[in-house]
Amino acid sequence: MTRAFHPRTRFRQADNRLWIGGRPAVDWADALGTPAFVYDRQMVARRVDRLRAALPERVALHYAVKANPFGPLLAHLAGLVDGFDVASAGELERVLPHRRPGQPVSFAGPGKRDAEIAAGIRAGIAFNAESEGEILRIHRIGAGLGRRPRVALRLNPDFVLKASGMQMGGGPQPFGIDAERAGAALGLVERLELEFAGIHVFAGSQNLDAGAIAEALDATFELGRRLVEENGRSLPEFNLGGGLGIPYFPGQAPLEPEAVGNPLRHLIERHADWLADTRIVMELGRFLVGEAGVYLTRVVDRKVSRGHTILVTDGGMHHHLALSGNLGQVLRKNYFLALADRLEGPVETVDIHGPLCTPLDIVGKGVELPWAGPGDVLAVFQSGAYGATASPQQFLSHPAPVERLV
Amino acid sequence: MTRAFHPRTRFRQADNRLWIGGRPAVDWADALGTPAFVYDRQMVARRVDRLRAALPERVALHYAVKANPFGPLLAHLAGLVDGFDVASAGELERVLPHRRPGQPVSFAGPGKRDAEIAAGIRAGIAFNAESEGEILRIHRIGAGLGRRPRVALRLNPDFVLKASGMQMGGGPQPFGIDAERAGAALGLVERLELEFAGIHVFAGSQNLDAGAIAEALDATFELGRRLVEENGRSLPEFNLGGGLGIPYFPGQAPLEPEAVGNPLRHLIERHADWLADTRIVMELGRFLVGEAGVYLTRVVDRKVSRGHTILVTDGGMHHHLALSGNLGQVLRKNYFLALADRLEGPVETVDIHGPLCTPLDIVGKGVELPWAGPGDVLAVFQSGAYGATASPQQFLSHPAPVERLV
Repeated sequence: MTRAFHPRTRFRQADNRLWIGGRPAVDWADALGTPAFVYDRQMVARRVDRLRAALPERVALHYAVKANPFGPLLAHLAGLVDGFDVASAGELERVLPHRRPGQPVSFAGPGKRDAEIAAGIRAGIAFNAESEGEILRIHRIGAGLGRRPRVALRLNPDFVLKASGMQMGGGPQPFGIDAERAGAALGLVERLELEFAGIHVFAGSQNLDAGAIAEALDATFELGRRLVEENGRSLPEFNLGGGLGIPYFPGQAPLEPEAVGNPLRHLIERHADWLADTRIVMELGRFLVGEAGVYLTRVVDRKVSRGHTILVTDGGMHHHLALSGNLGQVLRKNYFLALADRLEGPVETVDIHGPLCTPLDIVGKGVELPWAGPGDVLAVFQSGAYGATASPQQFLSHPAPVERLV
Repeated sequence: MTRAFHPRTRFRQADNRLWIGGRPAVDWADALGTPAFVYDRQMVARRVDRLRAALPERVALHYAVKANPFGPLLAHLAGLVDGFDVASAGELERVLPHRRPGQPVSFAGPGKRDAEIAAGIRAGIAFNAESEGEILRIHRIGAGLGRRPRVALRLNPDFVLKASGMQMGGGPQPFGIDAERAGAALGLVERLELEFAGIHVFAGSQNLDAGAIAEALDATFELGRRLVEENGRSLPEFNLGGGLGIPYFPGQAPLEPEAVGNPLRHLIERHADWLADTRIVMELGRFLVGEAGVYLTRVVDRKVSRGHTILVTDGGMHHHLALSGNLGQVLRKNYFLALADRLEGPVETVDIHGPLCTPLDIVGKGVELPWAGPGDVLAVFQSGAYGATASPQQFLSHPAPVERLV
């Protein structure tokens, strides 16, 4: 019988304790204070290596900063990936100090403000244009700055990526230009004498279904071929998006990089005729950093209320909105949790609540854990992406979490 | 036929424009920049007046800081209410500079950290204890500081407040001490020679059903009487909680203060025998400030995708998580919206999306609005509570919202 996947097995476990970056997790909690997000630098590096080994060599790997814009993590990733994708001028500002010479940065996202577009043009990065109106604005602002902006077309595909945690393509979308308008948008880019940078298709995120991803990649390549053939323009860059998921809940199986890399290799071979001079890019956020982060929070109170044992922790939804089930989830499920200094032991069933004076601040419901009380440290796994910055940190005016790359 | 309630009717409407605090809303957007939360000081004052007129005179009114801890708003409220309720040491710090002499502050919330308890003891405020373990910790920390802490018991009632947006009492709860353990907890407070400050019952929040509120108040008074009779101790303070809601969605009717004040008056008369020396408190957050706040966001892009008209705004879920449907809502519904400089006009149906590169950033779906394009200002009503601080402001590294009391 195979043991069900638990992300704690990716970390060292010794003396019945969880270790992160060569130190017991409780030592980090003591040293940094809690609540804290601890990111394991070696785990990020290994993850990138593993993915690169599985992907065709010519596929460039970009990091999607939105997943986690923590400065030391960006500095670390700059030595590992081939480029960055930003979703705001704020992210651009965070990336620029770390970006290595020659590393491309692209800027995707609906509703780019004029000041953001100007910042992007000054930095010389490429825009993934989300609408024809945006192309016109980029042109106007570029003209004002005496610069020729680089514009890729973000395309809203005419297919959907099945089994995605979040759909970002197909049907009407704020994201990208409808695929059937791609030729017209390309014509606009040419008429305005903007530098055409390629196309970008991002169909969905948090996908664990390799078959669905392969199917969407297939359709993405067909879309690329059609655009090239119909318009007689080759693509400087072909950004396939990302969307590779990680398991968040018991019962979900990890996505193996080969399950994406192998079909991608076949596709690139099959489409070699129109891709000769094209830089092929995958952009990933969560898949690179999500598993490397652990949120450490300390138990503050233990109480029994009407037969239920309730632990109250110093961390919760203000640092980790997804953990509380309020970041797009329809039904809340428990994250993978462990007691950092007592991985195994006789268990009891507890409810775990954060410190906010709202019933929304759920850390775990009906969780089986070894006995825990005030002072014990709880580890919340899969917390490296969409954690600290995706959470309402000022809610109830609690302190910000500590973050540390170790 | 009565016209359906729309919160914009609480603001001045002239020249087909929305006015806030004596100025067109678009002027505020121009002057402050967008996105911005604008709070109307007179509307807050009128709201407090109206509530006071409806409540029995002896009921003290406290402001629950968690609803909105914006400094100028706290300063304004300090002149209007009788006290404050805080849910963290951070909120305490925000309140202390504004609190008037003699204004009591109480501190409720599960998972109070030791440092927070110490801060509360130093400030001389009363704690609403959430568990017997917390009572022990308050005693220990008070002893270390050479102070005698003031402790009220927050009770988890043995009834539920029906029709609440959020249940915070009844069944097993992180909040409060189970009502059936109240006598034991009171005994603990006395044995430890803490100063007994009274009891606090907060059964739920965002309730628009006056009948359900009256029923819960009735049960709360019975609970108070039982505790007093069984233990022979009168209550220095009897905090009834709050939970009065405001209408967020079309079809919801406002809660009239008299519908709460009248049954409360009868209850106080009926329970006069054991309440002679008791300070009776209602603590309200959302009900006092929620309607006075408008979130102003500017349209950045307008596009048509597969037959749907989509407006993209510079504001969204990073400032207003509840608007996007991710603050505890099971089903997302549209807030009350209006175009600030074109309240009426031939309408079209649009989807409105914020600037974040995620499908979660929904501002409105299938909204009927007069024609709007880049530069136009959208007003989101009912945004005075649980807005800026309850939202993931750092998500995608966009700028923080401007806040202004006008």
